Amino acid sequence: MKLATYRDGSRDGQLVVVSRDLTQAHYATGIATRMQQLLDDWNFVSPQLQDLYVTLNHGKARHAFAFDPRLCMAPLPRAYQWADGSAYLSHAERVWHARGAEIPQNLRSDPLMYQGGSDDFLGPCEDAVFPSAEAGIDFEAEIAVVTGDLPMGVAPDTALEGVRLLMLGNDWTLRHLVPAELDKLLGLVQSKPATAWAPVAVTPDELGAAWQGGRLHLPVSVAWNGKPVARLDAAEMHFHFGQLLAHLARTRHVRAGSIVGGGTVSNADAAAGYACIAEKRALETIEHGEARTPYMAFGDTVRIEVKGTDGLSVFGAIAQTVAGVDAA
Amino acid sequence: MKLATYRDGSRDGQLVVVSRDLTQAHYATGIATRMQQLLDDWNFVSPQLQDLYVTLNHGKARHAFAFDPRLCMAPLPRAYQWADGSAYLSHAERVWHARGAEIPQNLRSDPLMYQGGSDDFLGPCEDAVFPSAEAGIDFEAEIAVVTGDLPMGVAPDTALEGVRLLMLGNDWTLRHLVPAELDKLLGLVQSKPATAWAPVAVTPDELGAAWQGGRLHLPVSVAWNGKPVARLDAAEMHFHFGQLLAHLARTRHVRAGSIVGGGTVSNADAAAGYACIAEKRALETIEHGEARTPYMAFGDTVRIEVKGTDGLSVFGAIAQTVAGVDAA
Repeated sequence: MKLATYRDGSRDGQLVVVSRDLTQAHYATGIATRMQQLLDDWNFVSPQLQDLYVTLNHGKARHAFAFDPRLCMAPLPRAYQWADGSAYLSHAERVWHARGAEIPQNLRSDPLMYQGGSDDFLGPCEDAVFPSAEAGIDFEAEIAVVTGDLPMGVAPDTALEGVRLLMLGNDWTLRHLVPAELDKLLGLVQSKPATAWAPVAVTPDELGAAWQGGRLHLPVSVAWNGKPVARLDAAEMHFHFGQLLAHLARTRHVRAGSIVGGGTVSNADAAAGYACIAEKRALETIEHGEARTPYMAFGDTVRIEVKGTDGLSVFGAIAQTVAGVDAA
Repeated sequence: MKLATYRDGSRDGQLVVVSRDLTQAHYATGIATRMQQLLDDWNFVSPQLQDLYVTLNHGKARHAFAFDPRLCMAPLPRAYQWADGSAYLSHAERVWHARGAEIPQNLRSDPLMYQGGSDDFLGPCEDAVFPSAEAGIDFEAEIAVVTGDLPMGVAPDTALEGVRLLMLGNDWTLRHLVPAELDKLLGLVQSKPATAWAPVAVTPDELGAAWQGGRLHLPVSVAWNGKPVARLDAAEMHFHFGQLLAHLARTRHVRAGSIVGGGTVSNADAAAGYACIAEKRALETIEHGEARTPYMAFGDTVRIEVKGTDGLSVFGAIAQTVAGVDAA
């Protein structure tokens, strides 16, 4: 099924069920009001939502209305955990190479992962507001999963069974703040502002054969200021999501509603484009000795979308404009 | 006022008001059931809880019962953010020195901070369960604040006004997993398992003159296997909490219920003891060329407490036993 969160003035918004083709929606009132409620009590709540979803898809839901992604918050407007892996090795290798840094020897056996802020996510059409245009403003298109409860030490295959939802994210990065934070060794805080999420979260069964081996076998498209810059195969992950979840759960329990990302999507074939400007600049640096593509300016737009084999949008689109903090 | 969360089988537990001397408690039913509700709607909810607190302290609350910290979850059993600073320079300097690493030049102007996991906190008397005794199990006694909403770019003094609650934490660390994660530059994930919190969260007004300049002017006591190992002045922070909050909020909004820590408490006078074993080992390495104190073993206990000038426990005690994952 497909689910979204409608803005209602509250911090957590209102849970809605969205039709497969994203044209219709229906409030989940009477079943659950918030997305986290579903995740907290999946086995009890999800069958009821699934019934409503089937009715909605058949055009039989009594109070259906036209779905408008502009009225959406992030599917989880705030979450108890957001841990982002880096499973696309071509991204890591290009960025490290361009930085002149030695690529970690265990890049292929031990996932890179950072803990992100999850108290304030952006909706799919919200402006991305930053204090300065000089910070190296960059988008990052990526796929993430939302989990049920996973016990400490869970194995990758078992962890995969705990995947409740998939989402599409834009993990904004302020590139010029990254090097100083890397030097501090403790991870990214100021260089990772609020992440935005596509309007619709999707259960794995909805994806059919496109969800296989813990990877999403669909293309991620990115357009920057209306110009297509990527059509990347999301399945080219070195680590699948079960491995990323097991990495996170090695020394602690992972609780329902945790969001775990696969990192910036990237393909070995550079002709497929780039899901973040930093990777384009890394390729330029490797080829020409210098980066030529500037980062984003205030007023720039980015659109990120995944279409299924049927040509329909899977998660709905992220469509954001970059703005200065004074303009907001 | 003083607040705690009683275990009730749910993920968020039940909010209770606790008397100043920690002997009596009263369910907040009818006002708010969960701690996060209070933080989401502070101005509306807190005066009602304050009234109940006054009544409870006067022995006039109708359904008061004996407060038992063993029945407590963490005050916030899960939170939308847990960002931990490192404001005690003597800790940072000793640990970096012993590691043979160069101390960052801007240690005094730019706070160290890492983003922690907040989906699964431990209650004050819960066993700390780890997959292996060989991971370098270490406690970390520290003070943290819980915030209201803070806007992006907030100034330190304004940020301080957003402090809603203070808490006492035990930020468990698996020391032998730290170096490999530092090498990856992206922060601490596996080396930072679930953090435990003392039973009672306290509003700043409750602390009187002990809460001054964004610092808690009280001693933090630590006992390891019943033996006192620290009585440290919590006020010896180089950065005060307003500065830590402003650091976190530089490029993003910080939302109500975010927990921000001051880092392992440490004093320049080594005779005051140690709030984590790593610091003791660092001092030994500097003095003798090698660490002599082993990390914790399964079955070890740690007790962490802060007493006020009146001799009463401010937050109640953290009293945990270390256990293996199979014994749990």
